[in-house]
Amino acid sequence: MSEQARARAVEPPFLIVNPKAYLGSADTLKLATLTDELAADFNVDVIFTAQHVDLRMVNRHTTNLTITAQHMDPIVKGRGMGHILPDSLVEAGAKAVVLNHAEHQLSLATLDATMQRAREVGLATIVCADTDTQCRAIATMNPDMMICEPTAMIGTGKMDAGDYISRTTTIVKNINPDILVIQAAGVTNGADISRVLNQGADGSGGTSGIVSNPDWRGVLTDMFTAIANHKQKA
Amino acid sequence: MSEQARARAVEPPFLIVNPKAYLGSADTLKLATLTDELAADFNVDVIFTAQHVDLRMVNRHTTNLTITAQHMDPIVKGRGMGHILPDSLVEAGAKAVVLNHAEHQLSLATLDATMQRAREVGLATIVCADTDTQCRAIATMNPDMMICEPTAMIGTGKMDAGDYISRTTTIVKNINPDILVIQAAGVTNGADISRVLNQGADGSGGTSGIVSNPDWRGVLTDMFTAIANHKQKA
Amino acid sequence: MSEQARARAVEPPFLIVNPKAYLGSADTLKLATLTDELAADFNVDVIFTAQHVDLRMVNRHTTNLTITAQHMDPIVKGRGMGHILPDSLVEAGAKAVVLNHAEHQLSLATLDATMQRAREVGLATIVCADTDTQCRAIATMNPDMMICEPTAMIGTGKMDAGDYISRTTTIVKNINPDILVIQAAGVTNGADISRVLNQGADGSGGTSGIVSNPDWRGVLTDMFTAIANHKQKA
Amino acid sequence: MSEQARARAVEPPFLIVNPKAYLGSADTLKLATLTDELAADFNVDVIFTAQHVDLRMVNRHTTNLTITAQHMDPIVKGRGMGHILPDSLVEAGAKAVVLNHAEHQLSLATLDATMQRAREVGLATIVCADTDTQCRAIATMNPDMMICEPTAMIGTGKMDAGDYISRTTTIVKNINPDILVIQAAGVTNGADISRVLNQGADGSGGTSGIVSNPDWRGVLTDMFTAIANHKQKA
Repeated sequence: MSEQARARAVEPPFLIVNPKAYLGSADTLKLATLTDELAADFNVDVIFTAQHVDLRMVNRHTTNLTITAQHMDPIVKGRGMGHILPDSLVEAGAKAVVLNHAEHQLSLATLDATMQRAREVGLATIVCADTDTQCRAIATMNPDMMICEPTAMIGTGKMDAGDYISRTTTIVKNINPDILVIQAAGVTNGADISRVLNQGADGSGGTSGIVSNPDWRGVLTDMFTAIANHKQKA
Repeated sequence: MSEQARARAVEPPFLIVNPKAYLGSADTLKLATLTDELAADFNVDVIFTAQHVDLRMVNRHTTNLTITAQHMDPIVKGRGMGHILPDSLVEAGAKAVVLNHAEHQLSLATLDATMQRAREVGLATIVCADTDTQCRAIATMNPDMMICEPTAMIGTGKMDAGDYISRTTTIVKNINPDILVIQAAGVTNGADISRVLNQGADGSGGTSGIVSNPDWRGVLTDMFTAIANHKQKA
Repeated sequence: MSEQARARAVEPPFLIVNPKAYLGSADTLKLATLTDELAADFNVDVIFTAQHVDLRMVNRHTTNLTITAQHMDPIVKGRGMGHILPDSLVEAGAKAVVLNHAEHQLSLATLDATMQRAREVGLATIVCADTDTQCRAIATMNPDMMICEPTAMIGTGKMDAGDYISRTTTIVKNINPDILVIQAAGVTNGADISRVLNQGADGSGGTSGIVSNPDWRGVLTDMFTAIANHKQKA
Repeated sequence: MSEQARARAVEPPFLIVNPKAYLGSADTLKLATLTDELAADFNVDVIFTAQHVDLRMVNRHTTNLTITAQHMDPIVKGRGMGHILPDSLVEAGAKAVVLNHAEHQLSLATLDATMQRAREVGLATIVCADTDTQCRAIATMNPDMMICEPTAMIGTGKMDAGDYISRTTTIVKNINPDILVIQAAGVTNGADISRVLNQGADGSGGTSGIVSNPDWRGVLTDMFTAIANHKQKA
């Protein structure tokens, strides 16, 4: 078992719940405690992201979630007014950080430095990529996880009609099979999740497919069920 | 009394304690509770900034500080992965936000939009400016407060040797006397604070002048004393 | 007559032809020589912008245009790989530079430094602004000219239905009447130009309203006629 | 022979003369014509970069240089005020473009899109990388050439004391042996160039090592001699 595998923040198949900036603090806490309850019921690991200001609160009120920051900066203690200090995320209970999301893109040098900082403070890295070319380049950087998603699909509620999921998952796994691959673009229910897991992904879930659904418990239960079923089969 | 004056987040003369990214969460809390205690003792208002991840914690453990974010983005609930949602800052207890710091500069259009969002969610704005030209331009945008500081002086522990403080304070006040002006570049003790208050500033304090001092209680007591004395004289 | 007025790059009322990135080099030259011919015929000053790579070529083949760069960086000779050196723009024949366009926004500090560099090398500054607040702030920085345009209208072929033109022109002129104000958002013909000149603007013209018109000579003649007629009336 | 090899903008070993923003137009032309003369004398290929505004001029006055832009944007004809249109670079005579320089870093998605645009318009890509990790990631993107340089060494006149050159060259070649590797950080004379070519690099040269040398003809002759000698040996 490799170092990386042992240090895994989550075990596949897992769920990602990524409310981005869709929810205020109270709603984030509501979604987090609900997800936490279901995570225990279904015995499924969960990446749960939140606004930086809410990370400590979510951590205090849950026990089964891998608390994840939505971004951080490659700074050390010192200057950096208005930037996100990695060390404080750890103190707040974060175990992972998403980097290079399509809505917050980083230069390659900054991404490199930020991944280095993540390793120094002990945060798992979840790095986003869009095209095959980007997936390949990022995979060589050995993040713990990757979110492969066609930028054009984000927030549409529609999944890629072609072979994006299996193709990009294979690209990543061929470079480093230890990288956990998340495919979540356009995913809105359990059937979608079953599909991407069957196509090789290690994790799935989403943002608008969950938070925009009026029945959070319903959609999450459907998603957890799909993952638990997939786990059983394995 | 104008709307703006009534809504003031702080009453001058006041202290600003801005640890930027110098401190982890535990040290931030230590500095915050100490500042809170002295704020009560001296009956002086305080702008206290913190990393986003620490804002709620600082708010929970203090009662006399104006909790202030070090940056936010001009987003509304929805997309914005990795960006700072203003609404959540308010839910966490923030009352003000610093914008356009030299270490996190904004385009004019983004600054304009972010100040608009601050007004919508009820956060006081503290906008940074460097040169006379920038001080003048920002003052026309009617922030609640401004930090005027020569970028080249930041973190040096040395104050501007010329008339920067009185000159830029006058520029701002001539445009809008309701804007509270903070002058803090190079300030390291109570004597420095007395000086800038005498030159017309409404508030002072700093970052490295405080956090890099091995005796936080000593330096803060010295600074609070200077402000309280200035208040008495007024 | 102020220094600024004497150094004016153009005399109002004037035309701005701003092909942005719509045209390759050959088409840019074609548009430039046509505009140059009409500028002489109508005796009307023209701001003509071009891709940096085409500035020298346009300058060599025309005599009546104020050659204008679409952006530059606040650098001096030295490092700055991939950035635009102001000194070289001057050597290529540029007389003015557009800054802070909605498609290339600058931080306030960068805009300030770049305007300073423009003054040092002798380029007139044409600074873009969107909202009333931005127009006011930019006007205090004393650019030679301003392009006031509601960002949402750019490229739509539709003009602001309200009082944007007269309102923002007044805001600028009240701060500094020497600033020449360009209003061009949504302008597509001579009638539009007459309208904005009558509402107080000093110059007008545009991008898509010209380059997307299949009859360049026709639309430019119409626009020049409007300006010449306005000039006559004055 | 692969497509890529056939389309090579230069044949190794070659020189790169990259004046960045160190020179105005007249000096750039002087350096270009001198380099052009020596390139013919020594029969050595040369990558010659220039400010965008000077590219067409340099192309008109030289015959042996691979004219190279210092940056471009991933735009197509249309909007993009102040950005560099790839198509116009080609019309001006450019054959290659440098991307992602330490002084003008790009997000991975932007780099990917810009490399795609380069292929569409027929420009060779020269992509910069710093650390081993960045070299590896960029190499998977199949640029025509790479500049591997430790950012901390740029402009110092000192070369990396360790095995950076051979190590990063090997990293790149192991991924794609068709990528031509440029190693030029801290290179100031012919002996430096011989050294890096012997360590596996395909090209070398530099910026400050050339332009800051008071004797351009002397330093260039020394560098060309080193390359020609290396060529002979091969």
